[in-house]
Amino acid sequence: MKCFLKYSKYCDFPIQNLPYGVFSTKEQQTPRIGVAIADSILDLYEIAHLFNGPYMKQHQHVFKESTLNAFMALTPDHWKEARSTIQSLLSVENPTLQNDKALLSRALVPQVEATMHLPAKIGDYTDFYSSIHHATNVGIMFRSKENALMPNWKYLPVGYHGRASSVVVSGTSIHRPHGQTLVVDDAPPVFGPCRLMDFELEMAFFVGGSNRLGEPISIDKAQDHVFGFVIMNDWSARDIQKWEYIPLGPFTAKNLGTSISPWVVTTLALEPFLVDNYPQDPEPFPYLKHSDRFNFDIKLQVDLTPQGSNVSTTVCRSNYKYLYWTAKQQLAHHTVTGCNVNPGDLMGSGTISGDTSDSFGSMLELCWKGTKPVSLLDGSQRKFLQDGDTVTMKAFCEGDGYVLGFGTCTGTLLPVKP
Amino acid sequence: MKCFLKYSKYCDFPIQNLPYGVFSTKEQQTPRIGVAIADSILDLYEIAHLFNGPYMKQHQHVFKESTLNAFMALTPDHWKEARSTIQSLLSVENPTLQNDKALLSRALVPQVEATMHLPAKIGDYTDFYSSIHHATNVGIMFRSKENALMPNWKYLPVGYHGRASSVVVSGTSIHRPHGQTLVVDDAPPVFGPCRLMDFELEMAFFVGGSNRLGEPISIDKAQDHVFGFVIMNDWSARDIQKWEYIPLGPFTAKNLGTSISPWVVTTLALEPFLVDNYPQDPEPFPYLKHSDRFNFDIKLQVDLTPQGSNVSTTVCRSNYKYLYWTAKQQLAHHTVTGCNVNPGDLMGSGTISGDTSDSFGSMLELCWKGTKPVSLLDGSQRKFLQDGDTVTMKAFCEGDGYVLGFGTCTGTLLPVKP
Repeated sequence: MKCFLKYSKYCDFPIQNLPYGVFSTKEQQTPRIGVAIADSILDLYEIAHLFNGPYMKQHQHVFKESTLNAFMALTPDHWKEARSTIQSLLSVENPTLQNDKALLSRALVPQVEATMHLPAKIGDYTDFYSSIHHATNVGIMFRSKENALMPNWKYLPVGYHGRASSVVVSGTSIHRPHGQTLVVDDAPPVFGPCRLMDFELEMAFFVGGSNRLGEPISIDKAQDHVFGFVIMNDWSARDIQKWEYIPLGPFTAKNLGTSISPWVVTTLALEPFLVDNYPQDPEPFPYLKHSDRFNFDIKLQVDLTPQGSNVSTTVCRSNYKYLYWTAKQQLAHHTVTGCNVNPGDLMGSGTISGDTSDSFGSMLELCWKGTKPVSLLDGSQRKFLQDGDTVTMKAFCEGDGYVLGFGTCTGTLLPVKP
Repeated sequence: MKCFLKYSKYCDFPIQNLPYGVFSTKEQQTPRIGVAIADSILDLYEIAHLFNGPYMKQHQHVFKESTLNAFMALTPDHWKEARSTIQSLLSVENPTLQNDKALLSRALVPQVEATMHLPAKIGDYTDFYSSIHHATNVGIMFRSKENALMPNWKYLPVGYHGRASSVVVSGTSIHRPHGQTLVVDDAPPVFGPCRLMDFELEMAFFVGGSNRLGEPISIDKAQDHVFGFVIMNDWSARDIQKWEYIPLGPFTAKNLGTSISPWVVTTLALEPFLVDNYPQDPEPFPYLKHSDRFNFDIKLQVDLTPQGSNVSTTVCRSNYKYLYWTAKQQLAHHTVTGCNVNPGDLMGSGTISGDTSDSFGSMLELCWKGTKPVSLLDGSQRKFLQDGDTVTMKAFCEGDGYVLGFGTCTGTLLPVKP
């Protein structure tokens, strides 16, 4: 499989990847659907008429939309055929696109000239808590080593409904918020700027297809609804969260902004990177049990860049494969009481921490509740985020002679608004 | 103020009310926006051209939509003028509509011939926990009288993000769900049908207008974003909730369906029913403090009808005015860290319980955790809901010679799906 476009073997977007995104340019301000290839974007609006397979021929219009929702509403058969069509059109062996210079010049947009948008209209956003190392770390810090994991944690993928409106695309700056915090135990709370701003290294999947209210998605069918994955930074105001979250969960500590990377890497593209599921004990209930692999070797990294500095420090290296619960289990559990999901719904993994202290996916864990500051390469130290810090998350799979990258999910923490 | 249509003084929908809803008929299957008047619906699509005031003249198109979102996106000035136009068109003194028999016959639809839909596309749904009696009752049952209210409860309106996709219009049946529950403490959980299905008597408001991410809505501006109110039944699987909710809050116990009444009674219509706010001690932080009244005397009632019975029992009489936190405070708190809200977002009050045992807004409280069964008029008893039970919630304000009604929010609990 060789593309007629040239790129290095370290490029995030080889012909094996083909992630979908939504972009606009100065010339073309109405957002369009595109596929990242090398350092370009293949504009699917311009080549929609070339999707002539039996599945997509009647659905070419989905590539004339400004979001991926209509495409996500189709089935795995459609997604598979569309991927195959794009792969063929980009192949050196296929003259259709590479020899039609007029079409090619319209259909290929340099990524540097594009503004990326949210890939889909997110109807609902859910965040899980599926990393056993993260849940254990938080449990040890706030309770004790003996009672680190809550009794329900190994029986069900704990999750909660998040705020869909505040999910933003990578590159959006986030303001340090004001809020209520408890500075001294048993004293009244105070109101002021958040003191403990944090990132959370997560991945999230977009739902494809839908189910009707009252009709759970069975574990056998769950995979058909996992369209693809993005990187996610679940910005968190730790001190606000600690005061507000009992008994109904995180609220204003999280709805200040959640960033995702713009390119949706499809489940199809991730197949070569399937690895064994995390061992589960006790055995899950039948509605959560699947024997096929649905875990992925996706390397994750968080870089922190202080304001005005050109030196970034990698503060965390983790991996998607550390998740205890699979995306299939998350979806089967989410719908077990009958909840309906829709194309474009977003499901976060929860912070993904590994089992070593340099693989923890949040400052809370990396600095162990502020007790172990992290040293940055510019000489400064961090316990939590400082104003002006830019957090950049990366995710990639290492293939045989190629990289399958997710691009980056980046954002800068701005000071509180006056 | 007299309407040219005749109705009794007990009618929910007099000319003082004019709630907005979305309906369709056999003849007109594309949903349209209408206003309830007497036992009819005034079809705003048909009379959109009559909105000729300075504010609405350029926005007549909002009444040609299939949801209220575009109308909700306007400002209180637009809503006020629209209300005034409708009131004038329905007045005996105005010949425009009453004498145009052709238009009138197109524009008036009998309510019995209409199917009601959700009034808006709900982007995000939030549920608060703002009744002090409800929070206290739950606290006493699950903790103790001394520690009934959590330390944060009187400092901020506790709330959580709910599932927007599973909000349904009154009349939709809900299936008893399957889920995990802990039957014996310290034993493993079991999977099976929910045993403790409950209703929660709530009201909810629809958001009008919007704010940008990072720009909180100040308490002074909050009222401009409270478009209007509906009745809400937050169906709850108590046993599932108890097992799953720590530490991130209710999840699958609530996303099985949340019912709302179809008619949105505007904040403008509720003005005559303003009453003093609930006394707050300690004094709220400045961002939550307002001296103007924003509490309402809205009588609430829950009727329970067993399957096949024609005898309904009123199991609860409560009142919106028992809420500790106002809708303005809920909205100011929701956005304090910068969360953006959008027209059509739904904000639930939380279960509204009064201070007497017949005013509790859930079976959990009415039967005090199953210890005090409620007797129904057909001779049966209930601790929680039984399959086939229909729950009907009503809300109304008693005016001087008229009733301002919300209609009903009803739903039947169906057995588990095989």
